[in-house]
Amino acid sequence: MLSADARSRLTVVLVGARNPQNIGAAARAMQDFGFRNLRVVNDFAPPFEAAQLEAKSAVGAGKVMQAARLFPTLQEAIADCTVVAGTTAIGDRELTIPVTTLREAAASLRAALLPPLNEKREPDCHATQSQPRSMVALLFGSEKTGLTKEQLSYCSALLSIPMFQPEDRHLSMNLGQAVAVCLYELSREGFEGVRPLPNRDQPSPRLEDRERLLSLVLEVMTASGYDRRFPANSRTAVVRQLILPVGRSRDEIATWLGLFRHILRSLISSQP
Amino acid sequence: MLSADARSRLTVVLVGARNPQNIGAAARAMQDFGFRNLRVVNDFAPPFEAAQLEAKSAVGAGKVMQAARLFPTLQEAIADCTVVAGTTAIGDRELTIPVTTLREAAASLRAALLPPLNEKREPDCHATQSQPRSMVALLFGSEKTGLTKEQLSYCSALLSIPMFQPEDRHLSMNLGQAVAVCLYELSREGFEGVRPLPNRDQPSPRLEDRERLLSLVLEVMTASGYDRRFPANSRTAVVRQLILPVGRSRDEIATWLGLFRHILRSLISSQP
Repeated sequence: MLSADARSRLTVVLVGARNPQNIGAAARAMQDFGFRNLRVVNDFAPPFEAAQLEAKSAVGAGKVMQAARLFPTLQEAIADCTVVAGTTAIGDRELTIPVTTLREAAASLRAALLPPLNEKREPDCHATQSQPRSMVALLFGSEKTGLTKEQLSYCSALLSIPMFQPEDRHLSMNLGQAVAVCLYELSREGFEGVRPLPNRDQPSPRLEDRERLLSLVLEVMTASGYDRRFPANSRTAVVRQLILPVGRSRDEIATWLGLFRHILRSLISSQP
Repeated sequence: MLSADARSRLTVVLVGARNPQNIGAAARAMQDFGFRNLRVVNDFAPPFEAAQLEAKSAVGAGKVMQAARLFPTLQEAIADCTVVAGTTAIGDRELTIPVTTLREAAASLRAALLPPLNEKREPDCHATQSQPRSMVALLFGSEKTGLTKEQLSYCSALLSIPMFQPEDRHLSMNLGQAVAVCLYELSREGFEGVRPLPNRDQPSPRLEDRERLLSLVLEVMTASGYDRRFPANSRTAVVRQLILPVGRSRDEIATWLGLFRHILRSLISSQP
C-alpha cells in the first residue's frame, strides 16, 4: 500500500485545463485514491476560480480543491519537483523521451515516491527551506491539445494509457477519467518490496539550475554557430530534453554550469 | 489479450443512472477501452434520451451511445447474461455474495469473456435466436445509492475499487470514472487494438562515441581554462562520470559531439 507520506509527495498538475468541471473531477479522483496535492497551470484564472467556487464535479473533494494552487507557468508549478512524468496519447517524434504504458511507468513512479534515504534517517525532522521535500509531478495536458512540445520537454518520462483505437477517432480521454485511471494504477499494488532508486544521498538538481544550464547552452550554441542545427521554433524544447539527463546531483550540475560559463566567457571575450 | 470478440461479450449496465452527462461519460470510457455494449436500466426515459441526444460528455463515443439500449427493469437488461458482476463500495451485510477487489475480479471476468467451448468449436457460425451468445454483465448502481439490495441479489460476484477511506466521507466514485477504472483494469493486460507506442528503439550510444565526447570535453575544458577545477590525476575519471548520463541515444550523443566540436573550433580559431 502506498503510504500517506508517499502519496503526499505526488502532485497532479493540470496544465491548461479550461473546464472547471474537469478540474473538479480531477480533484474528486484524487480524493478517492488518497492524493491531496493538486496544481493547475493557467495564465487565465477564471476556470480555476470557478472550480474552487462551484464545481459540482468536485463533490466530496472540497479539501483537495480548496488546497489546490494556481500557477501562471508550468515551470513555477514544478519548481520543487525532481521527477516530472507526463501523460500523452501520442508522444512526440522530435523529442526522444521514452513512452511507456501506464502500467510500466507506475512502478517507477512508486519508487520515486519513496522518501529519499537522507530524509528517512530523520523521520521527524521538519522540511526546511534549505532542504525542501522533493516532489514527483504527474502532468496532464489540456482537454483540447494535451501537452505541447514545450510542456513535454520538461518530462523525463512519458506514460500512455493503453486505449482502443479505431481509425476514425482522435484519441483523448476525459481528463477526470484519465486522472482516475492513473491514480488507480498507482494505488493498485502493494508498496513494499519496491527498491528505492540509488543515488538518493545527494540532493537532486533543482529545476532552476537546469533552466540556467539550458540558457547557457543555448547561448553557447549561438556563440559557436551550432544553433543552426535546430529549427528556431523547437530549439529550446529539444535542448531542454538533451540536457535533462545531465547532472544527476546538485554538485554535478554545478560543474556543468561552471563549464558552460567558462566556455561562454571565452567565446565572447575572443570575439572581435 | 482480450480479443474484440471477448470485448463484445461484455455489457456495461448502468442501473438507475439519473444524470445524462454520467451516461455519456460512461459511453466515452467504453469507447476508449473498446467496449460497445451499453445498457441503461430506468423506468423513466428522459435521462437516457437526453444522453443520446446531447450529452457532451459522450464526445467521440457517438456510436456507443446510439447503440445503447434502455430497459425498464434490471431483469430484462440482463436476460441474456450468464455472468452478472456488480460494483459496490460496501457490499451488503445480509447478502453473502463474495466481494473482491477489482483487480482480483478482473481475472475472473476476463475468463468469463472467453467464448464458451461449444462456440469455439464452430467459430464461423452465426449466433441464432435459439442459441444466443452468452453475455457478461458489469453493473453500476445509481449515483446516489449505488446498487440496492434487490439489484445486488442478481450478482454472482461483487467487486470493489480499492479507495482511500477517510472516516469523514461517504465513499462513492464518479460514475464515469468508476466505469473507466473498471474497463482499464479489464484491458490492462493488453489487446490487439492497442496502438503501438512510437518506436523508441533508437540505438544506444557506443562506448567509442562516449570516449570521443570525453576527449572533446577535456580539450574544451583546457581551452576555456576550466580544467583547473579538477586535479590533473583524477580529471579524466571525474569527467567520464560527468558525461556518463549524457546522450541517451546515438542521435543525442551525435548532437553533443557536434556541439563540442563547434565550441572547440571557435575557441581555438579565436586564440591569438
